[in-house]
Amino acid sequence: MTVPFGERVRAGLDRRGPLCVGIDPHPGLLAEWGLPESGEGVREFGLRVVAAAAERVAVVKPQVSFFERWGSEGLRALEDVSREARAAGLLVIADAKRGDIGSTMDAYAQAWLTPGAALEADALTVSPYLGVGSLAGTIERAYDAGKGVFVLAATSNPESRGLQSSVDPQGRTVSQRVIDEVSELNARHVAGGQWASAGFVVGATVDWRAAGIARSTPPAPLLAPGFGHQGARPDQLGAIFGEAAPTVLVSESRSILSAGPVMIDSVIEEHADAARAARTSAGRSVPERDGDE
Amino acid sequence: MTVPFGERVRAGLDRRGPLCVGIDPHPGLLAEWGLPESGEGVREFGLRVVAAAAERVAVVKPQVSFFERWGSEGLRALEDVSREARAAGLLVIADAKRGDIGSTMDAYAQAWLTPGAALEADALTVSPYLGVGSLAGTIERAYDAGKGVFVLAATSNPESRGLQSSVDPQGRTVSQRVIDEVSELNARHVAGGQWASAGFVVGATVDWRAAGIARSTPPAPLLAPGFGHQGARPDQLGAIFGEAAPTVLVSESRSILSAGPVMIDSVIEEHADAARAARTSAGRSVPERDGDE
Repeated sequence: MTVPFGERVRAGLDRRGPLCVGIDPHPGLLAEWGLPESGEGVREFGLRVVAAAAERVAVVKPQVSFFERWGSEGLRALEDVSREARAAGLLVIADAKRGDIGSTMDAYAQAWLTPGAALEADALTVSPYLGVGSLAGTIERAYDAGKGVFVLAATSNPESRGLQSSVDPQGRTVSQRVIDEVSELNARHVAGGQWASAGFVVGATVDWRAAGIARSTPPAPLLAPGFGHQGARPDQLGAIFGEAAPTVLVSESRSILSAGPVMIDSVIEEHADAARAARTSAGRSVPERDGDE
Repeated sequence: MTVPFGERVRAGLDRRGPLCVGIDPHPGLLAEWGLPESGEGVREFGLRVVAAAAERVAVVKPQVSFFERWGSEGLRALEDVSREARAAGLLVIADAKRGDIGSTMDAYAQAWLTPGAALEADALTVSPYLGVGSLAGTIERAYDAGKGVFVLAATSNPESRGLQSSVDPQGRTVSQRVIDEVSELNARHVAGGQWASAGFVVGATVDWRAAGIARSTPPAPLLAPGFGHQGARPDQLGAIFGEAAPTVLVSESRSILSAGPVMIDSVIEEHADAARAARTSAGRSVPERDGDE
């Protein structure tokens, strides 16, 4: 039987800790790494990060735009990088922030969340501007295939605040509404303390409690960019996320990738240790835990 | 000198009318067209639509997800289709609804809006969930390169209403806020009655006036899906969009594509005529028109 994505994340975090290593072949980083500005360059970059991340962390997150920049050649590189990562036992979150409606959204789910698809990942980041209802079909497909999604909820870039803190007639912010509606979809699939397979993107520098964002039920993985380069420290995990801390994926990109191709193994090791320690001190895994591998 | 995208759209609509032909190689349509479910199938489909659209309309809109479904092979097909369309003098709007922040968003702009890029289009649809500010760099790049964007504003799918009609402390809906903020960016670049290069996606079945969405200033192209298969008729153009009608791109996909590969030329001809007639009767081009080609 297919193990649900949410439970695969929980098992991965329990075993290797919460560090999620970004694979962002940014032009500046390619130059620092001595790699060519080309599809071949981003491929080399991605494969090197995968080799360094394997056995050290549970999750990697390729940033799709940096591959898409090279068109079909870049996507071919991403196919190789994702395949290699999954073969190494890493969970792959394709950070693509796709969002559309109906059969168009279905096609994105087919591209990224279908076993055997060229771009197959374990999870995809998605955008809810067209309403959470527009993502319901993708969330269903994800559950059917043991895949996951991370829905943009509350991001930490300051220019997002006006939109995401707008309120509906019940006074709920856009961010809270997204969390509520996705949680309702999750509740159809998840029982007994299991982790949901539709999680959220919540910036680590968002003041989660001050923003009035209640925790989601059932517990869902929280993909939290904003650690490292962008300002939050892993040891603030408990202070920032409170009881939700055990479900957080501590996402770091620049702070790791700027180590360069020689030092990256030891930097991942060190950051993974720090993130693991932060998770342990922030709390234990969510209660009602059933045994899983 | 590069002609701004907004002015290229205006010239195109004045010459050929407002019909924008969607290129949506949906699985069901591939079957109806007798084409294989593969990257080669979507390539054939796209090239046939381009051949039928050339000389008959000004704008085509490939739906990226149906190409992305085939991974790098599908994007290679899209590269061929877009290149062929642009060579035939068509404006290409890549309907990808990308949205991210900072250097990540820059990479999407590099992928789609950079002269010489493999996936080069004339304009890209973008999503503002991360705030219009997160798209400002892309809008700048678009102006610099004579390219355009269409920002999702008010879509017609019912499940989008709750989010897009949430309000900020000034009582502005999310949709109106997006339009206001993009219009401010446009105002930095556009003068003298020219059309802006950052337009909006506004569903044709949205009640544009009842939703309290004021018109944008400067005038901006409005990409309006929802005609044809989804319910709105081109002869309602004036009734739906009022004075903004001359800036509307009447986007049709299924209603044209379901004609099949033999009949598509005559169906495009007929729908283009109807859309042109609707635009003429809805009003003349926006005033203060400067001469352009």
